[in-house]
Amino acid sequence: MFEAPKDFTPDFSKSGGLIAAIAQDAESGEILMLAWMNEDAWNATLATGEAHYWSRSRQKLWHKGESSGNVQKVLAIRLDCDSDAVILEIKQIGGAACHTGRESCFYRRIVPGSSSVELCSPQVFDPAEVYKQ
Amino acid sequence: MFEAPKDFTPDFSKSGGLIAAIAQDAESGEILMLAWMNEDAWNATLATGEAHYWSRSRQKLWHKGESSGNVQKVLAIRLDCDSDAVILEIKQIGGAACHTGRESCFYRRIVPGSSSVELCSPQVFDPAEVYKQ
Repeated sequence: MFEAPKDFTPDFSKSGGLIAAIAQDAESGEILMLAWMNEDAWNATLATGEAHYWSRSRQKLWHKGESSGNVQKVLAIRLDCDSDAVILEIKQIGGAACHTGRESCFYRRIVPGSSSVELCSPQVFDPAEVYKQ
Repeated sequence: MFEAPKDFTPDFSKSGGLIAAIAQDAESGEILMLAWMNEDAWNATLATGEAHYWSRSRQKLWHKGESSGNVQKVLAIRLDCDSDAVILEIKQIGGAACHTGRESCFYRRIVPGSSSVELCSPQVFDPAEVYKQ
């Protein structure tokens, strides 16, 4: 899939072996989630063209959507100036990146002068239905 | 400026007192940079409406643009589902967020099947000129 050139190498040394990975909808520019990658997750993402992360809570490699089928197809990858963060430009299969069923994990929003939280990302699926036993 | 409600509180416990903060151009949706915030940086950002970060390399509070005047005006803040990452929807004064003079720190990009790195963010200023002694 991806043939990462030698000058396109993340620096895994700064956050305990991890880099930050931002998943952005390739079409709309909407930021869907932020997760973490270790070197294995990076290599698996390059090899498969589907987003793989390192789950800090479960301490394991996480192929996003592996059980539900709602994977993230990676169309391009951007690396930042100090090589410790990447953007994955993705197509989110199923339409929602968040475990709450919302399109984006960043679904809560505040603006100056208002003391209430706005819900800013649409509900795509009912998590009780999708994650039922 | 911002009156963060009680149910809009970042969780600083997961990355050594830090949360990840993504600065996104409020108008274009372009992701400009990723940096870190400790609780002081968060509070200063809320109080002033200008982005403050925690510099991991310099180990100090960092009011982005404080010397150059190229500050980041924060128009809205989004919090993710597990409260350890935020998006700052900003207006970048001066047009470039990156110390290289490019609009975005994420200026290098790869796509499947190509072995070369594409430069994908415009050069806005000459860093040798701006950061000269």
